[in-house]
Amino acid sequence: MSFTLDQRLADSSHLVACVGDIQVRLADDSRYPWLILVPEQDEVVELHDLTNDQRNRLFTLASRLGNWMKTTFAADKINVASLGNLVPQFHLHIVARRDGDAAWPGPIWGHANPTPRADADRQEMMAAVARCLETDEIL
Amino acid sequence: MSFTLDQRLADSSHLVACVGDIQVRLADDSRYPWLILVPEQDEVVELHDLTNDQRNRLFTLASRLGNWMKTTFAADKINVASLGNLVPQFHLHIVARRDGDAAWPGPIWGHANPTPRADADRQEMMAAVARCLETDEIL
Repeated sequence: MSFTLDQRLADSSHLVACVGDIQVRLADDSRYPWLILVPEQDEVVELHDLTNDQRNRLFTLASRLGNWMKTTFAADKINVASLGNLVPQFHLHIVARRDGDAAWPGPIWGHANPTPRADADRQEMMAAVARCLETDEIL
Repeated sequence: MSFTLDQRLADSSHLVACVGDIQVRLADDSRYPWLILVPEQDEVVELHDLTNDQRNRLFTLASRLGNWMKTTFAADKINVASLGNLVPQFHLHIVARRDGDAAWPGPIWGHANPTPRADADRQEMMAAVARCLETDEIL
């Protein structure tokens, strides 16, 4: 199956790893711990464009990453969302929110401009996510 | 299993039907076709508080309702999200978005105040969703 990542997703996030055919990406925004899952398949725009198996695997992964993020970042709430009003290629946001963060209690999308992570911070975050994905529990 | 619906969800949406242990509710906002799914179980706050079976059933239902909404309301995009920053009781939004709607292309949450539906409009919408749920395909 062919797959080309949308350029806006490529420019605003970094590939941490693939779990099967799902890309796990770190959004480059230091305001929030923010992951983006992208099934590697062209032409998927809506949740209902996924097969049952793809959908189940996607949300199993989202659930496990959200669980890990809630603990790791002492989050008050995990936000999970597929919007795509600006970037139609299907992608699922998983965001660790804290009371008092930049957009709290509103949604993060469209809330001012991203604050790119410093190199060391980004590398540390990506390594932490990668370690999480390497555990048996998450796979 | 005990279940008490959060008062804010009760005040801002109407129960259309239950599919198994999942409430299908119509958000009372005429700006968007907007459904809310609520698993009838206390203490569920995060996606990872659901069992695998509950999660799979929830997103299967969300996928089918989103598919129906996209066609029925000629939507440009379906937004599916679990936020819960204000109302922690787990609930999943399914919103049919159109280019030019009140919040487009931003997220709908926190965008000005809801515009309650007129009685006839609300009844018509609830009847349409109920008919959709009665078909074999959606169950």
